Amino acid sequence: MATSSWKWLVIKCKAAIAWEPKKPLSIEEVEVAPPKAHEVRIKIVATGICRTDEHVISGAMTTPFPILLGHEAAGVVESIGAGVTSVRPGDKVIPLFAPQCGECRSCRSSKGSLLAAPCGLITDGTTRFTCRGKPVHHFLTTSTFTEYTVVDESAVVKIDAAAPLEKVCLISCGFSTGYGAAVRTAQVEPGSTCAVFGLGGVGLSTVMGCKAAGASRIIAVDINKDKFAKAKMLGATDFVNPQDYKKPVQEVLVEMTGGEGVDYSFEVIGHTETMMAALASCHMSCGTSVMVGVPPSASQITLDPMLLFTGRTWKGSVFGGWKSKESVPKLVADYMGNNINLDALITHTMPFDRINEGFDLLNQGKRLNSLFINLVCKYFPLNYPPNIEIGTYMQ
Amino acid sequence: MATSSWKWLVIKCKAAIAWEPKKPLSIEEVEVAPPKAHEVRIKIVATGICRTDEHVISGAMTTPFPILLGHEAAGVVESIGAGVTSVRPGDKVIPLFAPQCGECRSCRSSKGSLLAAPCGLITDGTTRFTCRGKPVHHFLTTSTFTEYTVVDESAVVKIDAAAPLEKVCLISCGFSTGYGAAVRTAQVEPGSTCAVFGLGGVGLSTVMGCKAAGASRIIAVDINKDKFAKAKMLGATDFVNPQDYKKPVQEVLVEMTGGEGVDYSFEVIGHTETMMAALASCHMSCGTSVMVGVPPSASQITLDPMLLFTGRTWKGSVFGGWKSKESVPKLVADYMGNNINLDALITHTMPFDRINEGFDLLNQGKRLNSLFINLVCKYFPLNYPPNIEIGTYMQ
Repeated sequence: MATSSWKWLVIKCKAAIAWEPKKPLSIEEVEVAPPKAHEVRIKIVATGICRTDEHVISGAMTTPFPILLGHEAAGVVESIGAGVTSVRPGDKVIPLFAPQCGECRSCRSSKGSLLAAPCGLITDGTTRFTCRGKPVHHFLTTSTFTEYTVVDESAVVKIDAAAPLEKVCLISCGFSTGYGAAVRTAQVEPGSTCAVFGLGGVGLSTVMGCKAAGASRIIAVDINKDKFAKAKMLGATDFVNPQDYKKPVQEVLVEMTGGEGVDYSFEVIGHTETMMAALASCHMSCGTSVMVGVPPSASQITLDPMLLFTGRTWKGSVFGGWKSKESVPKLVADYMGNNINLDALITHTMPFDRINEGFDLLNQGKRLNSLFINLVCKYFPLNYPPNIEIGTYMQ
Repeated sequence: MATSSWKWLVIKCKAAIAWEPKKPLSIEEVEVAPPKAHEVRIKIVATGICRTDEHVISGAMTTPFPILLGHEAAGVVESIGAGVTSVRPGDKVIPLFAPQCGECRSCRSSKGSLLAAPCGLITDGTTRFTCRGKPVHHFLTTSTFTEYTVVDESAVVKIDAAAPLEKVCLISCGFSTGYGAAVRTAQVEPGSTCAVFGLGGVGLSTVMGCKAAGASRIIAVDINKDKFAKAKMLGATDFVNPQDYKKPVQEVLVEMTGGEGVDYSFEVIGHTETMMAALASCHMSCGTSVMVGVPPSASQITLDPMLLFTGRTWKGSVFGGWKSKESVPKLVADYMGNNINLDALITHTMPFDRINEGFDLLNQGKRLNSLFINLVCKYFPLNYPPNIEIGTYMQ
């Protein structure tokens, strides 16, 4: 299929560009360069909107600008660069914001799931996006708010050809992050008591993970009580609205658990106050608290180290601790086998052109403990790019 | 052996009392009440001096006064209260500052090693020590700076009758704490790279644990370079004196490990600065940092939560994460089988009456990263208590 005579083809297509912080995204025509060696160009079919994208727009997360955001998606391989062996044009794929190169220390470790990727650039330190003559930065090795993107081969994986991309795109971030925080990072044990702070899409996925791991009690914590019904449907057994109490929520949880605290707590918001509350909510000697929500840039937490010294474990979880390339196809298979519920996480479906409306919806849910909406943007039929042949580009 | 006709026998013996903070211990005659139900009175044969005892004297750790300190010891059961089944008079035993009741949440958990014991009192909320007519508080469920002590049955375990008590007393705290931090709490994996901050007795035991777990590289960190020789003998492969560098020690360690950081770091000092340095020294995605040194009371650490979010694990370790009653006899057996080296940890041996001299020796080592001396106090032959019969007291 590969021929060295193929021209370098730049695709012109629609993308949503963030030119500067605190401004709506701008739907523009971008030029997407062909994949270089070990790179893959993907036609994005569906993308979610995640709070982490909003963190960049709001300025809570610092990145270079202009930038092409989006990191939770699914699509079809359009073309591949030289040396790519794990996917072929036409394959259904999921881009991986936590790539798995298989070679670095993190990948070789039994624990790690995050590579140190260059911020805002593809692996070779350049960009494949140009808009109005200016280079546009990549985001989290993926950039999915575009009809076409280019990623490193380590940041994409082939999935079941029958998978519905508008559903399994949630495996690209939100679902896997929350579910894995429970089953992989915390390794919740059967019969244990868990508390999940924040019942957005990731928090609900954490509830599902706790349930799948056999937790006997799952305490759902949110200041938006409208979220409790869905949490209950997915496995939560107890519900706490911190606003119903005068005392700190950690004291409420400790009292609810016979003065001992929970076995596992999950902060799925990204607030330093709730990170501390989650840590203090778990058992002093055998409790584990997992930080799932992305902390704001340059934020700080102050704590008495005795909270940890007595035996607590505090850990971060990126992408649920999954090794992305080997785990994502299995999670897709779990969805296809009806073992996991993604449908419950989709709150809205809308066309790409209305992406700013999606962020408005996300921000309308912006209250403590309710910071996440999954929004699947189905793309309109495309008139462009030109009807290029799919294939392998040789360099 | 038990008879209801036995008189309640109070033992008068020597003990070192801390009447108030920042004063030397006072060798006094104390009255040690007989054990109540489920309690055990122990004749202490050897005790170590640990930095945690010094924390109380210096005021860094807040406890009630007067108090009978000491928690790292070995002895022989003198008598038992009603209902005690796991030890008998005459048994060689080790008191357990981290008791294992077998029933509470911590004991039932696969992870915990610390019970919430009432501070300064025995389990029923009273004291068995009286000095000059005043009740004296217990310390860490043990109190071993005395010829006789009383502990709850959950806080004592029988060991091999052939064990040399003046050596295995170190299993009661220092050795097990450091060794277990590596093999139990961190679960160091073969081939990994470790860093140990602080090369006192506990830090050296951590080095031994890393070595036993198969670490291929063990970086010993201390500002007292005199400690490197023994660390090398016990398995350390690299040595860092932070005073040899202008940059922070965490940057030195990250550079030494190809820019990645170590797999496991251990803070075995109890300083907030080195706790943070140890955390930052381990790999951002798959590193684990274990807090072994006791933090000063009411101290605070300020950190960017991103340090954890990226995937690091931060955990405390009390008594090395061991379940004390089931593990201590095995560790004694390991010593008897020449699988662990306790002799290397004993720096001085002296009689009980010179206990304040022992604390002076401890404090002479009081520099950053060199805060621990093991000191075994062999007791002089005792003239009192009266030659009472050993037996079981009925209540």
